[in-house]
Amino acid sequence: MRDVVSTRPNIWGDVRLIASARSAGRSLPVRGKQVQVMAMSAEAFDGVDLAMFDVPDEVSAEWAPVAASRGVVVIDKSGAFRMDPDVPLVVPEVNPDAAFSRPKGIISVPNCTTLSMIVVIGVLHHAYRLREMFAASYQAASGAGQAGTESLYDQLTMVGGHRALGQRPGDVRLAVGDGGEFGAPLALNVIPWAGSLRPDGWSSEELKIRNETRKILGAPELRISATCVRVPVVVGHSLALHAVFEAEVDADQARKLLSEAPGVVVTDRPEAGEYPMPVDVAGTDPTVVGRIRRAMDDPHALDLFVCGDNLRKGAALNAAQIAELMVADAR
Amino acid sequence: MRDVVSTRPNIWGDVRLIASARSAGRSLPVRGKQVQVMAMSAEAFDGVDLAMFDVPDEVSAEWAPVAASRGVVVIDKSGAFRMDPDVPLVVPEVNPDAAFSRPKGIISVPNCTTLSMIVVIGVLHHAYRLREMFAASYQAASGAGQAGTESLYDQLTMVGGHRALGQRPGDVRLAVGDGGEFGAPLALNVIPWAGSLRPDGWSSEELKIRNETRKILGAPELRISATCVRVPVVVGHSLALHAVFEAEVDADQARKLLSEAPGVVVTDRPEAGEYPMPVDVAGTDPTVVGRIRRAMDDPHALDLFVCGDNLRKGAALNAAQIAELMVADAR
Repeated sequence: MRDVVSTRPNIWGDVRLIASARSAGRSLPVRGKQVQVMAMSAEAFDGVDLAMFDVPDEVSAEWAPVAASRGVVVIDKSGAFRMDPDVPLVVPEVNPDAAFSRPKGIISVPNCTTLSMIVVIGVLHHAYRLREMFAASYQAASGAGQAGTESLYDQLTMVGGHRALGQRPGDVRLAVGDGGEFGAPLALNVIPWAGSLRPDGWSSEELKIRNETRKILGAPELRISATCVRVPVVVGHSLALHAVFEAEVDADQARKLLSEAPGVVVTDRPEAGEYPMPVDVAGTDPTVVGRIRRAMDDPHALDLFVCGDNLRKGAALNAAQIAELMVADAR
Repeated sequence: MRDVVSTRPNIWGDVRLIASARSAGRSLPVRGKQVQVMAMSAEAFDGVDLAMFDVPDEVSAEWAPVAASRGVVVIDKSGAFRMDPDVPLVVPEVNPDAAFSRPKGIISVPNCTTLSMIVVIGVLHHAYRLREMFAASYQAASGAGQAGTESLYDQLTMVGGHRALGQRPGDVRLAVGDGGEFGAPLALNVIPWAGSLRPDGWSSEELKIRNETRKILGAPELRISATCVRVPVVVGHSLALHAVFEAEVDADQARKLLSEAPGVVVTDRPEAGEYPMPVDVAGTDPTVVGRIRRAMDDPHALDLFVCGDNLRKGAALNAAQIAELMVADAR
């Protein structure tokens, strides 16, 4: 968040850092200045225009309304309010207008997996009207926070380190106990699970993709199925999508529309080995899309592959873009 | 192949090993005996009942008809004859009868990615009649042969080895030149490509899933879209599937049918962290299926995740099973 605030256009004036009492008093750099962290309190929000909340669901649930009641526009990255009908769920490239109807003074930021593909799907929905979508995700370890990244690093050291020390990688067999944050080894493995268990065997992450996509596109009847899978990647969520539209689609036209859309980069030259990949996307802002093909058996369907930085557009960047939207409107 | 021949039921009597002139003369163990490799020639097939071909497409194209013309039943693992209308494409659990109509004396073994899911899809097709399927794959490096595995091992040593030597994994940035067999780094990355380029941006691997599934199920009108993705796993191809059927589906019933099917293991207890994963499947014979859910927006659709050993069921095991089928019929 601090990195994004420090490198985006300066809309910020004074920046306050507010955290739990445990972190209060520390100094951290923001836009080149050291800023002392304040402890969370109702008064800490006095005089604040915009607050970006990057805290667990239960902290947002408690404190976002407190800030909002003092006139602050709250941009909340947690899951606490995403499906609240009185809270808009906003992606500036897709549904900016929604940000201006916020009865609770709160605007929600979608989940990182939804955000890794929604800008692309928004463009295609606008052109062809989405009817149905199947998504399979390839989610990075950092989606599970710092602990997730460290678990993967530890496992990679076990696997690759042994070889550096003269053993063959096949000599190393990771056990369930090495899984750390993921409950199973992620190095040299894929884990078809992300989030918590919901009815009928769905994971919370899979329901978020469905419910958030419906809300952002304003299409409550959309048929969506997702299967969420964790892969041994540090940064960069990818999704393979099969999207069925009301209108007939054309791959070249879709490629052209996407290449002209803000926030999207088309990387689609498989003949040159160029497709969206986490290794290229990590640390960048756009959603990258490629492998764009019209389904061979359905002229209304596109198959594609998208990849986004789950820590940037997937979280901090989208929040900062909403803040910029507020300021542009106020001016 | 030698491992599978050595550990499956002994239908084999005498075993000959036939290879290019370059390998001729070497001795290799098969079923506990050292067997000397013979050079490929027409005469090498004299007196042979069954031959399993594990060679490049062009070698099969040349030599399988030679062997067949001498009365040998050829079980061919290459891609040379898979879509030939006079060559059956056989998966013993799914379409065993097809093996007994072989005008050219050749039986084809499907591609490893098709084989990693087709036993599961066959069971469900039999019960509900498949109408449409979307597949996203998570394919192991070993699917690209020994060179693929070595490329991944080398990259993992660069990433993990540095940490063992005191650096942080983030200090290592793999470059395209480190990609080796895959043209891009596979460690800490996913590559949405497998095989060669076909018209309209499809990869050969994606077309194989579509065309082979149609042929094996005897359903030439099936609507199938696949997106094939390589992941940093050594052994074990996985697929996320969204399968739409003529009949209404029931997840519990599907689970029961699958758990009673030969060659299938159901691992579907997400509440206990149990789902199909390459780390558990590598080195085993069954296709493992889990994450079985009825689509929330379509009572005719199932979402599921399957995983199989691409070197066993994905290749050698399926060939040996066809050989066993021949012998059982001859007795």
